[in-house]
Amino acid sequence: MKKIAIVGASGYSGEELVRLLLNHPHAELTAVTSRQSAGQRLGQVFPKFASHPKSKALRFTEPNAELLAKQADVVFLALPHGVAAEYAVPLLNAGCTVIDLSADFRLKSAAVYKEFYAHDHPAPDLLAKSVYGLPEFYREQIKKAALVASPGCYPTSILLPTIPLLQAGLIKPHGIIADSHSGVSGAGRKAELDYLFCECNESVRPYGVPKHRHLSEIEEQLSFAAGAKVVIQFTPHLMPVNRGILTTLYLAPAEHFQDEAGAKAVGEKITTCYGKAYANEPFVRLLEGKALPDTKNVVGTNVCEIAWRLDPRTGRLIVMSAEDNLVKGASGQAVQSMNILCGWPETAGLV
Amino acid sequence: MKKIAIVGASGYSGEELVRLLLNHPHAELTAVTSRQSAGQRLGQVFPKFASHPKSKALRFTEPNAELLAKQADVVFLALPHGVAAEYAVPLLNAGCTVIDLSADFRLKSAAVYKEFYAHDHPAPDLLAKSVYGLPEFYREQIKKAALVASPGCYPTSILLPTIPLLQAGLIKPHGIIADSHSGVSGAGRKAELDYLFCECNESVRPYGVPKHRHLSEIEEQLSFAAGAKVVIQFTPHLMPVNRGILTTLYLAPAEHFQDEAGAKAVGEKITTCYGKAYANEPFVRLLEGKALPDTKNVVGTNVCEIAWRLDPRTGRLIVMSAEDNLVKGASGQAVQSMNILCGWPETAGLV
Amino acid sequence: MKKIAIVGASGYSGEELVRLLLNHPHAELTAVTSRQSAGQRLGQVFPKFASHPKSKALRFTEPNAELLAKQADVVFLALPHGVAAEYAVPLLNAGCTVIDLSADFRLKSAAVYKEFYAHDHPAPDLLAKSVYGLPEFYREQIKKAALVASPGCYPTSILLPTIPLLQAGLIKPHGIIADSHSGVSGAGRKAELDYLFCECNESVRPYGVPKHRHLSEIEEQLSFAAGAKVVIQFTPHLMPVNRGILTTLYLAPAEHFQDEAGAKAVGEKITTCYGKAYANEPFVRLLEGKALPDTKNVVGTNVCEIAWRLDPRTGRLIVMSAEDNLVKGASGQAVQSMNILCGWPETAGLV
Amino acid sequence: MKKIAIVGASGYSGEELVRLLLNHPHAELTAVTSRQSAGQRLGQVFPKFASHPKSKALRFTEPNAELLAKQADVVFLALPHGVAAEYAVPLLNAGCTVIDLSADFRLKSAAVYKEFYAHDHPAPDLLAKSVYGLPEFYREQIKKAALVASPGCYPTSILLPTIPLLQAGLIKPHGIIADSHSGVSGAGRKAELDYLFCECNESVRPYGVPKHRHLSEIEEQLSFAAGAKVVIQFTPHLMPVNRGILTTLYLAPAEHFQDEAGAKAVGEKITTCYGKAYANEPFVRLLEGKALPDTKNVVGTNVCEIAWRLDPRTGRLIVMSAEDNLVKGASGQAVQSMNILCGWPETAGLV
Repeated sequence: MKKIAIVGASGYSGEELVRLLLNHPHAELTAVTSRQSAGQRLGQVFPKFASHPKSKALRFTEPNAELLAKQADVVFLALPHGVAAEYAVPLLNAGCTVIDLSADFRLKSAAVYKEFYAHDHPAPDLLAKSVYGLPEFYREQIKKAALVASPGCYPTSILLPTIPLLQAGLIKPHGIIADSHSGVSGAGRKAELDYLFCECNESVRPYGVPKHRHLSEIEEQLSFAAGAKVVIQFTPHLMPVNRGILTTLYLAPAEHFQDEAGAKAVGEKITTCYGKAYANEPFVRLLEGKALPDTKNVVGTNVCEIAWRLDPRTGRLIVMSAEDNLVKGASGQAVQSMNILCGWPETAGLV
Repeated sequence: MKKIAIVGASGYSGEELVRLLLNHPHAELTAVTSRQSAGQRLGQVFPKFASHPKSKALRFTEPNAELLAKQADVVFLALPHGVAAEYAVPLLNAGCTVIDLSADFRLKSAAVYKEFYAHDHPAPDLLAKSVYGLPEFYREQIKKAALVASPGCYPTSILLPTIPLLQAGLIKPHGIIADSHSGVSGAGRKAELDYLFCECNESVRPYGVPKHRHLSEIEEQLSFAAGAKVVIQFTPHLMPVNRGILTTLYLAPAEHFQDEAGAKAVGEKITTCYGKAYANEPFVRLLEGKALPDTKNVVGTNVCEIAWRLDPRTGRLIVMSAEDNLVKGASGQAVQSMNILCGWPETAGLV
Repeated sequence: MKKIAIVGASGYSGEELVRLLLNHPHAELTAVTSRQSAGQRLGQVFPKFASHPKSKALRFTEPNAELLAKQADVVFLALPHGVAAEYAVPLLNAGCTVIDLSADFRLKSAAVYKEFYAHDHPAPDLLAKSVYGLPEFYREQIKKAALVASPGCYPTSILLPTIPLLQAGLIKPHGIIADSHSGVSGAGRKAELDYLFCECNESVRPYGVPKHRHLSEIEEQLSFAAGAKVVIQFTPHLMPVNRGILTTLYLAPAEHFQDEAGAKAVGEKITTCYGKAYANEPFVRLLEGKALPDTKNVVGTNVCEIAWRLDPRTGRLIVMSAEDNLVKGASGQAVQSMNILCGWPETAGLV
Repeated sequence: MKKIAIVGASGYSGEELVRLLLNHPHAELTAVTSRQSAGQRLGQVFPKFASHPKSKALRFTEPNAELLAKQADVVFLALPHGVAAEYAVPLLNAGCTVIDLSADFRLKSAAVYKEFYAHDHPAPDLLAKSVYGLPEFYREQIKKAALVASPGCYPTSILLPTIPLLQAGLIKPHGIIADSHSGVSGAGRKAELDYLFCECNESVRPYGVPKHRHLSEIEEQLSFAAGAKVVIQFTPHLMPVNRGILTTLYLAPAEHFQDEAGAKAVGEKITTCYGKAYANEPFVRLLEGKALPDTKNVVGTNVCEIAWRLDPRTGRLIVMSAEDNLVKGASGQAVQSMNILCGWPETAGLV
């Protein structure tokens, strides 16, 4: 058992971390912090946890890095971008392992951070030390990491389907289009008119077109995979569901094809590529036959579903993924990283 | 006043036709037919119309072309594909004007029909005579039409944003991608497990990938606009809303640009192009400033919202549209055609 | 044509007033005010109205009673409780007709107002002059009113089914229970955590138990109908729909019955009573046969559906009603009052 | 570890049983049957389970009692009413323990069964042997049961709040009213127009008024608790959520009160009564302070939330409960019974 704390536990990804950690076989949740909720019991802020045997002992406190360092071996930061760095530095100095769910340490380049987040990076030294917490590709590095930058929700839904194809040279690195649809919890738990029930219900809408902040980490990771600079098109949309991201990717196969036979030949390579990458991954589900991803099949789980189709009419590859933005897209993936770096079974607390 | 009948009035687009025609200043709804609902009063099948003063007199009957020809000047067909043609032929022979909401008469090519609908066209002679009921582009032909093939919901959401750009040569005809999201009413009012509340609610999913039937009419119309064969990529998704289609288009501007200045120059041409096409169109709304389309702003109206962005990072043009799949995407547009061919103000009953 | 203004037009009932008045055959909407939205065009705040021909000329202004009195003959107040009175007084003094959608003038007793709203009434003199705008029962008074206090959404859904029974002495005035379920728009358009999409979606919950403010006007009106003080039990619940109130009433018939035959005899009196009250009312729909109210059948309309059942097992009468909280429960009913006091057909702009 | 089978596993409560049993520490799910899905793998019918390590081995079969008796120690029946009895008899004869989720064995009286279910009971001898599977009140009997009749969803939401009060004599047994609101999964996984997404979304409606079948078991259990025949009023409503039941109960305290002081005295007795009944129950959560039940706080859990208010204005007690209709209202409660009769910790697999 290790002692675990969550800083910023009153938001949606914080809440999901609480859910996962309360039921984790090796983790003991020792502290939850929140400025707004300080002083309240866990079950008051989140009534759904009130009957959990481990919940009674937990009360929200003001975040205090010094104290947290004493209370926990591993600290999850579920804070807004820019704020996370403030806590990461003292916690790391005090010897804690930090798993950050914000964007603060996902990029390797402080310049790109500034371009997309519009302010200087608060702790540029740490960028080189942090590990991008996408276990399917950074498992070995996570094992030794002191600071894990857990990927964003959109990036996860785009990177998992794309990286193996780029690494295998099966698709061209240029011209990638990612069209994503997210549930409203992705906007966070904040009182804004745009996210009121009546403004989201019976509404489907794009936003952040054409330069959403998540592009920075998506492109950096895709560039690593391709071995060359990758620039993509990315359009997020807001959907009236609580949770779930469905991403549809439009990709150009490296190999030209224009009929069913050609498609079959290319398809076999894709099958092999994805099989190699994911057949043994517990949290990536490659769909077979006529099945296509559906957010309702992954909500509440740490699984990302992937399916693909080749279109002989256009010569294009369409890859579709579905994940729960709060689990594989945030808190579940962060727990997966914790399992890895603590030496526990990777699926502990996540099945 | 003209007498109007609806064949197949118990589905969702039939219901929407009823709503529009009950309140139309020049139309008198004289007959509604439905095999399943024959014998029932309009207000029994659709309680929401029961208090309408004109509803009391209406009762569903079995569809009978001979009788309908006596009851109505204009007949709307809101029937499944393949069935509509059965009624269109005798009604046209009897001198009625027919506005068909099915796909039966939308294509000019019987061969393409067979490719996409998997059976021979039931009345190929009529294909040359029917007019594609997209008023913004076929207004003059609609005025003289005896048979209007009202466009599909997805096609309308794709054609309105794309045709002017293709006609003006501002985008390349190749490589067009349309990513669409539709409400569940698009699947029709039929008892199937896939469309149960619990199967659609909290679910976002693609379907019909990569060769949806609507491609046939979309590509035919885009080819006319481009003056060359156009093949596109089209991915529909199902969203948990009753109504609304949001389409996001990925287009390649004919003119290369790679920075803000270049984008500005191209943008001015797009602004001019859309302005020419739609500034005076009552049912196309060009969004300005930071506004992006949102299905909730068009639901219940005959309006299609359009906004666009140029991305200097990728050189691409992203165009987004929103419409109500049952109004501008079906019944409202059909009424718009009726207004045109009857010589009434085009907006009659639609504002 | 009369000139009409709306004060507080940026909330949900204000928005619905705009919708109804833009399409009203006798009303010219000349002014819309809103503190938050002052300076913006109508179509910027409510994009769905942007294509309406009459929308272009309208821009939100700061509310100013003196100016409004010059711009309009009839002024609707769609303001929070307590604020409406501030505008009503000067507007009435300037000769305007005022239709107030708040609770400020619904009660006859300033003491009851203070008990339920926790502050002194801001203009107690007007309480005797205002007319309760429930046209089905106050039609004659509305015709001559200068100040109409349009009923609340819950009260309308409870009073319409209950008043005729009380007036006819068919039910006991004691022991009435009203269990109501409302859509989220009833909470208003305000940025609060409780009304975020993710807090309301997939949630059903009671609130305001046991003493909701609307009790004051419900009980006052029921007491008038019964000719004796009526105290009721009322429990509102929040439902994940945008619009609609479904109320289920548990009533004790004055006449005892305990079998089907007894129920039949009592039932005939109820049928007669409701028939007398509502057979000719355009906005009350008495359901027949097996039909039960459903909010989806009234949303967007000014109709209240009513159905009832007698239970021989318990001797109780269950009456159920459905209305759109923003139409018959607010803005539609207010327009109905306007039609009456302006001498227009009562259904003008409401069918 | 015991071997467990589910008969009728392709419906919503079957699916939920699968979810709970796949993750149960002491249960090995050895067989799932379904007429419609026979031959398909578990992960094909329910993709969300496809990545579960234990799912791979499971394939739906035709239900066969003889075979099931060999495959399993405990068999759950998630079948329609009337069908369950067909399987229960041979399974019991073969020595299996049967936990039935249908209504077939919930009543003690075959006559009441016939009154409410409109056909003779298929196995009346078993009525005396079956145990009503409400652990909070039948724990000792469940320990020794061969046949558990797991309670209905509505009954659970009504019985848990009411039985302790009746047993303690704190409320009158007459005049009880239960107003319930259920998510659509309560209607089962069947292709009917009424439960299509577009027919349920944005809809709130009552049904089954005034004599719903669940009344039979509710009244039988309440009569046992009161020691006298209890007849209640019960109105179910359909809400556009996937899961959850919110019940609001209107009760008459045995002791009269008419002011805050009187309410306080009565309230203390209620607090004591509920505390005795539930303070140590893991799956009943008594809310404190201003908190009221909300289905979103119990969805996915086996917990029933309860809160109450005394109204000095009416002298009534309002009790509200929230549960997940598929968990505490069906499959979770059935697993709770399994835990009890197998001698496992009652919360095993349910936290």
